[in-house]
Amino acid sequence: MSTEAKNDHTDEVRGHLEEGRDSEISRLLEGLHSSDIGRILGSLDEEQAMRVFRLLPPEQASAVILEVDERLRKVLISSISSEELIEVVHEMETDDAADVISELPVEDARQVLEGIDRQESLAVQKLLVYPEDTAGGKMQAELASVPETATVEETIEEVRRKAAVIENISSVFVVDGNGRLIGAVPLDRLILAGPRARIIEITNRDAIRVRTDMDQEEVAKLFQKYDLISVPVVDNDGRLVGRITIDDIVDVLEEEIFEDFYKMAGLNIGARALDPPARAIRMRVPWLFLNLITASAAAGIVKIFEGTIEQLVILAVLMPIVAGMGGNAATQTITVIVRALALGEITYKNAKWVLLKEVVVGFSNGFLTGAVAGFIAYLLGASVYVGLLLFLAMIANMMVAGVIGSIMPLVLKRYNFDPAISSSIFVTASTDFGGFFTFLGLATIFMKMGLL
Amino acid sequence: MSTEAKNDHTDEVRGHLEEGRDSEISRLLEGLHSSDIGRILGSLDEEQAMRVFRLLPPEQASAVILEVDERLRKVLISSISSEELIEVVHEMETDDAADVISELPVEDARQVLEGIDRQESLAVQKLLVYPEDTAGGKMQAELASVPETATVEETIEEVRRKAAVIENISSVFVVDGNGRLIGAVPLDRLILAGPRARIIEITNRDAIRVRTDMDQEEVAKLFQKYDLISVPVVDNDGRLVGRITIDDIVDVLEEEIFEDFYKMAGLNIGARALDPPARAIRMRVPWLFLNLITASAAAGIVKIFEGTIEQLVILAVLMPIVAGMGGNAATQTITVIVRALALGEITYKNAKWVLLKEVVVGFSNGFLTGAVAGFIAYLLGASVYVGLLLFLAMIANMMVAGVIGSIMPLVLKRYNFDPAISSSIFVTASTDFGGFFTFLGLATIFMKMGLL
Repeated sequence: MSTEAKNDHTDEVRGHLEEGRDSEISRLLEGLHSSDIGRILGSLDEEQAMRVFRLLPPEQASAVILEVDERLRKVLISSISSEELIEVVHEMETDDAADVISELPVEDARQVLEGIDRQESLAVQKLLVYPEDTAGGKMQAELASVPETATVEETIEEVRRKAAVIENISSVFVVDGNGRLIGAVPLDRLILAGPRARIIEITNRDAIRVRTDMDQEEVAKLFQKYDLISVPVVDNDGRLVGRITIDDIVDVLEEEIFEDFYKMAGLNIGARALDPPARAIRMRVPWLFLNLITASAAAGIVKIFEGTIEQLVILAVLMPIVAGMGGNAATQTITVIVRALALGEITYKNAKWVLLKEVVVGFSNGFLTGAVAGFIAYLLGASVYVGLLLFLAMIANMMVAGVIGSIMPLVLKRYNFDPAISSSIFVTASTDFGGFFTFLGLATIFMKMGLL
Repeated sequence: MSTEAKNDHTDEVRGHLEEGRDSEISRLLEGLHSSDIGRILGSLDEEQAMRVFRLLPPEQASAVILEVDERLRKVLISSISSEELIEVVHEMETDDAADVISELPVEDARQVLEGIDRQESLAVQKLLVYPEDTAGGKMQAELASVPETATVEETIEEVRRKAAVIENISSVFVVDGNGRLIGAVPLDRLILAGPRARIIEITNRDAIRVRTDMDQEEVAKLFQKYDLISVPVVDNDGRLVGRITIDDIVDVLEEEIFEDFYKMAGLNIGARALDPPARAIRMRVPWLFLNLITASAAAGIVKIFEGTIEQLVILAVLMPIVAGMGGNAATQTITVIVRALALGEITYKNAKWVLLKEVVVGFSNGFLTGAVAGFIAYLLGASVYVGLLLFLAMIANMMVAGVIGSIMPLVLKRYNFDPAISSSIFVTASTDFGGFFTFLGLATIFMKMGLL
């Protein structure tokens, strides 16, 4: 397929729908990848999407249903009969089937589990036990494995059998008589071996394995660190129960990074652009209330200096500059630190250095931008002393930004909290406090000294 | 290898170093993965790291040098002779060799290119031509390929030959007499076929391919969309010139997401937590100056209402609440939108709906938090009318946040700019303007009406 052709056929499908040419649609969809069909369904309105979906044969329908978002998936599933749904689920790999079934209402889930074949149903039910964000929740039961007593020829026979029904076999796993994992043999190594050799001779006993309860983020890190393509999953007794492939992990990696930044922005992990308003409000308003508390506390600081502002209103004009610049500098710091923590670049050893560096950077950037800000204040009609005041307060507040922006995530990480949760809200609260307090506090001192 | 054992051996290595037991270190490192050794080197000081690095055999050294960050890599490379460097580079795959050589000073690069064997040198030089962030820059020259006339048996022979020297072969590529790519055969399909069959019969002619000039982000999206493990790269004439494997793509995906959030935070892509202060300042200060401009403009708005504030200082106390809450709401909106744009969830069709939704969410969240804020203002000593004023201004500003937070990235995307660049700076500038203007403007009207 040419990747240059970016035409997504949506308009074509829409045209056929309006003219009622269902057979044309079927012909068109036949040649498309499930992910492209999923995109087309997402661009149609619900009724059209259901009509198109019903035109797909079960095998394609089962692939497409995994490509659309959760909401559309519910709509599509509700549009087909439970017999059809059973057929669709039957076509899926066990991990995908478990994901889809876990989203169904209990009664429908039960029906589907009874409808698909018994062995498949048992495999899916086993997967349903594991929390979604663990290795157990990500794994699939389909894999190629042989007992340690097998020959290379027998192993190739196993691959041959499995390759007909499973995608992306890259390794065969070797187990002992109790089903416990001994190691893995990558396919290229299998091809290299003579057919009569015993599989155990070419088995990599050090092959990385993960336990069902390992957190998905940790699994993803292993894939990345060791450039893995698939990994066997074992239970508490070391028995082989499934495998995780890289394509599932790519999504996990993406999810985990987005999560960090969601937390920084004060957003629930589940929030999406296409959420209905009521859900969007529910996802966001708790964080806004939290922000209201910190903003009110910052306002309390300003309140302390009401008398000072009363005497010199230009202070009220300039104070948002100090606070805002501090907030921006703090966001820069925290973003760099959260990334470095996610990638494991910050160690106990260099943490102190990083902190010191952030203070130096804060001082310098405060000095540079503060000097210009002082000049701008002068243009806005402030006296030279007010300009000096602004300059000093900006240096102080940018240093506060550097300290808080780096210490907060580091300390949270140290005590096993999520470093990203320290988020814009707390850090900008600190720079609001810092900005108002240093600027208005210094102003009060300057006044007492008779400079203002 | 047990993944549970998290001991990273750094202290052990340090102990051996102090006691001068180099042979102990060699023995210890022998059993470790390059990525673990890289982590140990990163935790040691430079001199220690160089000492340990010199103990590694060339093959391991070449793997380790790819695992450390760019700065440490320079240090380590400078610590070995050019003969040793040639040996180390010789052990690398061509894409990694090209990356390392591109970081060397020109003279050293020339020496290495002359030192490694001629064919390898030519392959590396070809790769050096492509920009780093394109398919050409990410690909490696090592791959398994056969002419279309080959039999399955001959193809297996090719895999056998290549598997001895290259990692992660998952497909064999099939080319015509002019070296043009016809298609690919996954290894499991190869194993399924009879040895005397012709390879062309089982070749997937629709196999996804990319051109050397394709942007790395687009390549990454293809991997993700089609769950690929490797992809062949062709030149403008369709000739097979290399392949890209999933492990290189995982890093690209991560990089691209981080880039989005870096831009949102006002940070240069290259900024890192471990940058020396001078570099950190250079990376950040331009954005801070940009922010200074917008913050000063916002201060200009406050300046217009100086007279109003003079009459009622409590306004200066409360105005940061309006601006800050708007900024927070805008950050929530923009984060959700940038994510959705990155994942392709927002289409021309649903963009209007998203915008309308954000306005509704802004109104509701403004209403809820504004009511509480009004009450807090009352506690801080404001009159009922000031409380009402705060309530109304917060509703207005949260709606501004919703509109700007969603329109800005959408419009930028529409005109092919990067949606993330709209960043905190511009959006919070808008909510600062909006906050100060609605709050102080309404206050002025209330005053004229004799309510304040």
